[in-house]
Amino acid sequence: MPESSGPEDGVGGSGAPEDPAYRAALLDLLGAIAYGEISAFERMADDSRLAPTLEDKVALATMASTEFGKVARLHQRIRDLGGDPFAAMAPFRSPIDDFHAHTAPRDWFEGLVKAYVGDGLVDDFYREIAATLDPETRELILSSMQEGPHAAFVVARARAGIEADPRLGGRLALWSRRLMAEALTQAQRVAAERESLTAFLVGGAAGVPAWDLVEIGRMFGRLNDRHAERMRRLGLQP
Amino acid sequence: MPESSGPEDGVGGSGAPEDPAYRAALLDLLGAIAYGEISAFERMADDSRLAPTLEDKVALATMASTEFGKVARLHQRIRDLGGDPFAAMAPFRSPIDDFHAHTAPRDWFEGLVKAYVGDGLVDDFYREIAATLDPETRELILSSMQEGPHAAFVVARARAGIEADPRLGGRLALWSRRLMAEALTQAQRVAAERESLTAFLVGGAAGVPAWDLVEIGRMFGRLNDRHAERMRRLGLQP
Repeated sequence: MPESSGPEDGVGGSGAPEDPAYRAALLDLLGAIAYGEISAFERMADDSRLAPTLEDKVALATMASTEFGKVARLHQRIRDLGGDPFAAMAPFRSPIDDFHAHTAPRDWFEGLVKAYVGDGLVDDFYREIAATLDPETRELILSSMQEGPHAAFVVARARAGIEADPRLGGRLALWSRRLMAEALTQAQRVAAERESLTAFLVGGAAGVPAWDLVEIGRMFGRLNDRHAERMRRLGLQP
Repeated sequence: MPESSGPEDGVGGSGAPEDPAYRAALLDLLGAIAYGEISAFERMADDSRLAPTLEDKVALATMASTEFGKVARLHQRIRDLGGDPFAAMAPFRSPIDDFHAHTAPRDWFEGLVKAYVGDGLVDDFYREIAATLDPETRELILSSMQEGPHAAFVVARARAGIEADPRLGGRLALWSRRLMAEALTQAQRVAAERESLTAFLVGGAAGVPAWDLVEIGRMFGRLNDRHAERMRRLGLQP
C-alpha cells in the first residue's frame, strides 16, 4: 500500500515492499547499510590499536561494537523481505572495502576523524534515502543511524588534539575533505553498478515518486552543509 | 555481612565488600575480567579477518561484540566499589597481552578453537572464583560468562573442518593443549604478582573462608575435565 509523504519534504513518497522493483532496491539498500556497519566495525576495531591510552581504545571499541550491534536487525529485515542477507551484501563489499583501503588512517587522530566525519556522512546519506521509503524500513534505518554518546567523546578528543597542535588541524581538514571525495567516488561507482537502487532513486519504481535532478542537487548540498558543520565541531576549517 | 555458602560446594563463603582486603581482591578480579573481555574483543575482531567467508566473519565479529558488551557493567561495578576501572585493569594488561601474543592464531581454525577453548577455559576459572564471592558480584560475573549461541557455530565449523582433514585435528589438539599451558603460565604470573587476589584465594581475607591446597587441586582437576570436554565437542583427542 503506497503512501504519499506529501510534496513538502521534497523527495518521493513511500514504496510498497510487494512491488518487485521497490523490493530489489530495498534489498540493495539494506545490504549496503549492513555491510557498511560490518566494515565500520572491523576498521574501528582495528584503528582502536592506534589509541594512545586504554580509555581511548575502549571508547573506539565501544563505537565499533555499537555499529556492529545494528547488523542483526538489518539482516532480519532482509530475511523478512524474502532476501538472503549475505547475497544482499555481496555487491557492496568491494566499493566499501575500497573506500576503507583508500582511507586507512595513518594515526590515531585520522582514525578518530574518520569515525566521526566518515560515519556521519554515510549516515546522512542513508537518512536522505530513508525519507523515500515505507515506514517500517524507514524507522529501522533511522534507528540504525542515531548518533551515540561516543560522538561527544570523539569531538572532545579531536578538538583537544587540534588546539594543542595547529598543524594537526590543517592536516585533518585535508583528511576530512579526502574522506568526502572518496565517499563520493564509491557512491558513484555503486550508482553505476546497481541499477535497481539507482532506478528507484532517480527513475522511480512503479508507483514511487522519484527524485529529480534538482532534488538530487539539493541533497548533495545538504550533505555538504552537514559535513562542514561536523568539521567545525571538530575545530577544523571546512 | 559475610554469608556462608555452606561446605557442600567445597569452596569458601562470600566476603563483605566493606572489608578492605576483600574489596582489593574484588577490584583485581573485576579489573582482570574486564581487561580480558576488551582484549578478547580485539583479538577476535582481528582474527575475524582470517574468515574464509563473510558468514564466518560475521559470526566471529558477533562473538567479539558480545564479549565487549560485558565491559560496561564490569566497569560500573568497579566504580560502585569506589574503584577506577582503568586503574583496576592496569595490572592485568601485560599478562593478558602476553597470553595473546604467545597464542596468535596462524589460521582461521586456530582462531576458532582459541575463541571457543580459550574463552571457555578462562570463563570456567572465573566461575570457580565467583562461587566464593558476595552474591551481587557473583551474579555479575556469572552473567558475564554465559556461553552465547555462537559456541554452537564454532563447534559446528571446527568439527566440519576437522572431519574433512584429519591432520588438522592433530594440529588443533596440540594447539588446544598449548592454549591451556599458556593460560596456566600467565595465571601463575598473576598469582605471584597480585598479592591481594592470591591472599584472598589461598590465605583467606578476614572473615572469608579460603581455599586450601586440596581444594585448589580439585579446582584444577575440574578445569582440566571441562577443557577435555570442550576438545571432545570439537572432535579433538584431549
